[in-house]
Amino acid sequence: MTGSGLIETLAPRIERVAGRLPRRVFVLTSGPVWALWNKTFLASFPEAPIVLFLEPGEKSKTLASVEKLLRQMARGGGDRGSLLIAFGGGIVGDVGGFLAAIYMRGISCVQVPTTFLAQVDSSVGGKTGVNLPEGKNLVGSFHHPLAVFADIGVLGTLPDRELRAGLMESVKAGIIRDRTLARFMEEHVDEVLARDAKALEKVIAASIRMKASVVNKDEREIGLRMILNFGHTVGHALEQATSYKALLHGEAIGWGMIAALFLARKRGTVSGSQFNRLESLIHLYGPLPKLKLKAKRVIAATGGDKKNVGGVRRFVLPIGIGDAGVVEDVSPSELEAAVEFMLARADARPAK
Amino acid sequence: MTGSGLIETLAPRIERVAGRLPRRVFVLTSGPVWALWNKTFLASFPEAPIVLFLEPGEKSKTLASVEKLLRQMARGGGDRGSLLIAFGGGIVGDVGGFLAAIYMRGISCVQVPTTFLAQVDSSVGGKTGVNLPEGKNLVGSFHHPLAVFADIGVLGTLPDRELRAGLMESVKAGIIRDRTLARFMEEHVDEVLARDAKALEKVIAASIRMKASVVNKDEREIGLRMILNFGHTVGHALEQATSYKALLHGEAIGWGMIAALFLARKRGTVSGSQFNRLESLIHLYGPLPKLKLKAKRVIAATGGDKKNVGGVRRFVLPIGIGDAGVVEDVSPSELEAAVEFMLARADARPAK
Repeated sequence: MTGSGLIETLAPRIERVAGRLPRRVFVLTSGPVWALWNKTFLASFPEAPIVLFLEPGEKSKTLASVEKLLRQMARGGGDRGSLLIAFGGGIVGDVGGFLAAIYMRGISCVQVPTTFLAQVDSSVGGKTGVNLPEGKNLVGSFHHPLAVFADIGVLGTLPDRELRAGLMESVKAGIIRDRTLARFMEEHVDEVLARDAKALEKVIAASIRMKASVVNKDEREIGLRMILNFGHTVGHALEQATSYKALLHGEAIGWGMIAALFLARKRGTVSGSQFNRLESLIHLYGPLPKLKLKAKRVIAATGGDKKNVGGVRRFVLPIGIGDAGVVEDVSPSELEAAVEFMLARADARPAK
Repeated sequence: MTGSGLIETLAPRIERVAGRLPRRVFVLTSGPVWALWNKTFLASFPEAPIVLFLEPGEKSKTLASVEKLLRQMARGGGDRGSLLIAFGGGIVGDVGGFLAAIYMRGISCVQVPTTFLAQVDSSVGGKTGVNLPEGKNLVGSFHHPLAVFADIGVLGTLPDRELRAGLMESVKAGIIRDRTLARFMEEHVDEVLARDAKALEKVIAASIRMKASVVNKDEREIGLRMILNFGHTVGHALEQATSYKALLHGEAIGWGMIAALFLARKRGTVSGSQFNRLESLIHLYGPLPKLKLKAKRVIAATGGDKKNVGGVRRFVLPIGIGDAGVVEDVSPSELEAAVEFMLARADARPAK
């Protein structure tokens, strides 16, 4: 659920969904999040949970961290009836979900995401996991949380750039599946960016609902779920070509959506006016960072995406506003044109 | 499926269940198994799979091994459409199943178990996993194989003691769920122990069928599946009290079944003549090793079983022949009497 004041009332809320508060509760969090929120978090627990810490940053998303934490759980007396609460950003959610997925072959998990992106993106679908030196998210499980508590209140301290990058997930949700959300975001950009609680709650709730509806229809990402990858073919390539350093994930997806929109326009699945409206929507929640990259490099990087089973390069293309489909026959020259268009926009975009 | 000559015809069999042979096939095996069977195994594959090795022994059942193997899979070009074949005993099956469960959030897996115990026990139910220094099987997933090929032919080289220990799983299956199997094992003990292919196939197939029927009705081990733990409360305690060194798993379960049978007799869920018949059946597939242990030590060890959620000590008791139920109210004095009875039998059992 999405709302305000959820964190200070967590224990009774968990009791309600789980039937009872388990005898042994673990909290996985990061130092900075815990420093800010520990008093609020602990307020509703009759007995203090065991707190486990994950170092912030992608470098902690490893099997070595997982092993260390699993051992702490075993020493802390975790049994099959135990519960793990993941309280933090996307990495805490991914690692925490994975711990719950594999500790004693699966215990219950509750997600309490503390960033906009994690609230929208990581908290539905049950994707959990860690990285290998060979690639990101190569190891993991599908493990659905018992509940997700997305507290708008914790977003108050989020840096502006992270909020805007996170909002790209909602822009995406609107474009591929929810024209009402797309229109709301067009019309309420000021309230949303000013973090008006009601506006943010509406955007987050709609985004989560969209994702849940897609995922519930398609547990294993075989068909419909693919549309959630709108913007990802080129977006991941941008992340890879910039070594995951220059861009936030949402920013890369923002540019990737623009490349995909170009393809959709060329193929006629969106009209000229729809194209203009959707491109403007993306920039409303910018500014997206400029890109200093060669088209060739970006194109090469589109080949290495984990989602390309058997070497096929998949693209999600919007169909009008609020619908989307998957194509697998994008030619090299189409791809090149789309990337060139995007890079031109990324270099010469007028200031907002 | 269970039968002879399965290993030399594996590729077309996999093609049949999977629709097609995946582009990238991995085989997890152990050096000794591969040395004996590699030519037979490879005969039917048009393109050689990538072979990954696990050192034999429980010490390899770690997250460190898992990480090493996952990285080999990533470097070997494994994608979401890849297949892993676990070709070996129980440990290879557990680790291989876990690799398949978590590589890219789950790829397909085929089990080709090479020991009697693995054919009956590890190949149904989708239990996979590894140990932590804090305890056995504390980490894992439920991941069902696409198919299980239990080839009777590979059992020809199995040491006699391992065969007999493995057969305890079938004795268990007969007692708790399949009186026809129990009777067959009573009447055909010589053929089975002489490894007559037809007799062995019948016993293995019935044991797998029993387990599959229980597990399919109860995916998450909440209710019915508990009866598979017949003999395990005291059996695990014996393994723990002997540091997993003196007894094979099946032997410990054999003694554990005798302790549970004693409780069942005392509570009247089996009659005196049923008790005698079932105890004889267990000894027919012995000899079970003698035990030099104090009752106190065994009783203490029953407290540390992973299956005791919230501190309750669960016992599976046979009800007549071919049925069983779970009780949670065994008193300390009942437990003591059962353990004393078992230890008396274990010390003074007449030679066969």
